[in-house]
Amino acid sequence: MELYSGYINKLIDELAALPGIGNKSAQRLAFYIIGMSDERVNRLANTLMEAKSHVMYCKSCQNLTDSEVCPICGNPSRDHSTIMVVENPRDLAAYEKTGKYKGVYHVLHGAISPMLGVGPGDIKLKELITRLGEEDVQEVIIATNSSLEGETTAMYISKLIKPTGIRVTRIASGVPVGGDLEYIDEVTLLRALEGRTEL
Amino acid sequence: MELYSGYINKLIDELAALPGIGNKSAQRLAFYIIGMSDERVNRLANTLMEAKSHVMYCKSCQNLTDSEVCPICGNPSRDHSTIMVVENPRDLAAYEKTGKYKGVYHVLHGAISPMLGVGPGDIKLKELITRLGEEDVQEVIIATNSSLEGETTAMYISKLIKPTGIRVTRIASGVPVGGDLEYIDEVTLLRALEGRTEL
Repeated sequence: MELYSGYINKLIDELAALPGIGNKSAQRLAFYIIGMSDERVNRLANTLMEAKSHVMYCKSCQNLTDSEVCPICGNPSRDHSTIMVVENPRDLAAYEKTGKYKGVYHVLHGAISPMLGVGPGDIKLKELITRLGEEDVQEVIIATNSSLEGETTAMYISKLIKPTGIRVTRIASGVPVGGDLEYIDEVTLLRALEGRTEL
Repeated sequence: MELYSGYINKLIDELAALPGIGNKSAQRLAFYIIGMSDERVNRLANTLMEAKSHVMYCKSCQNLTDSEVCPICGNPSRDHSTIMVVENPRDLAAYEKTGKYKGVYHVLHGAISPMLGVGPGDIKLKELITRLGEEDVQEVIIATNSSLEGETTAMYISKLIKPTGIRVTRIASGVPVGGDLEYIDEVTLLRALEGRTEL
């Protein structure tokens, strides 16, 4: 027997198909949404459709934006000769929140993963290479994640760019600030050791 | 500076206002939604609005349904003289999944909580009392949660119904099946002891 109304089941299914939302959360969300005011449900639905229809990729860095060129690329006081390559807009946001990075970005929207069948052609890498040919870039800082995919992508990009003579760097791996050594995995500990600097 | 497009920020805010979705999850969801196909975003938005507009409370048990009377209340082979009182539709679904309960339900849509300012008038209690006056009910099984609010609600309902002569029962509290005693909290252990039965 159907436990819930067909409309609720459909809503639960749609919500459960979103990342990070399991069946139980989808149920809880669906009942919550049905309990919201008509006005709020309509606003949520419209916001979804509006965001989808108005948001596009920045022509230059591929970050999500609602203008052809994003505010960072369009800002003349940023250093356009330094490009930080990140996997996704959330990583860009993380660096941007530090307030200390003055260069521009390039958002790959993914990372190379032979396991998941994601190749170099599936991320915004071609766009980065085009940019390097058109703009006067001095340094590419690779800030992909410190995961297998992130490292593979970093290696791949570095091999691709190095022949052009542009400086390619990688953000440091190591013990997080405030991290307690005893709780940190071995790979990170070894990385921190390899990357040690003079005091 | 605005990190994301205004449309993305609005979507993140709407999503983060839903229960159980924090700011990080809302960001992840928003970017995922923007990456979905137009068709899928429209379907999600429509499902939200449809569910909201078609789903109503069952006239009898107050469960959510898309007809005036829900399939359980409308089923003549269920025992209409036994009403199980639950806090919300998810709890009803949990009992329904056991396949063993043959009575009907009453969904309170909440529990009395002086702490949160939820009084007896804020849950579907009046509707239960009306039902008891109109239908031939032999037993009311109180299956509210085993929390402070659930117990308060159970006590309140029991005091309200007992004078009418209708049998009022409460589902048992105790050690969950398969539960390991050493990991179970003291209150549950004491409840299990109090509720012990002859072998």
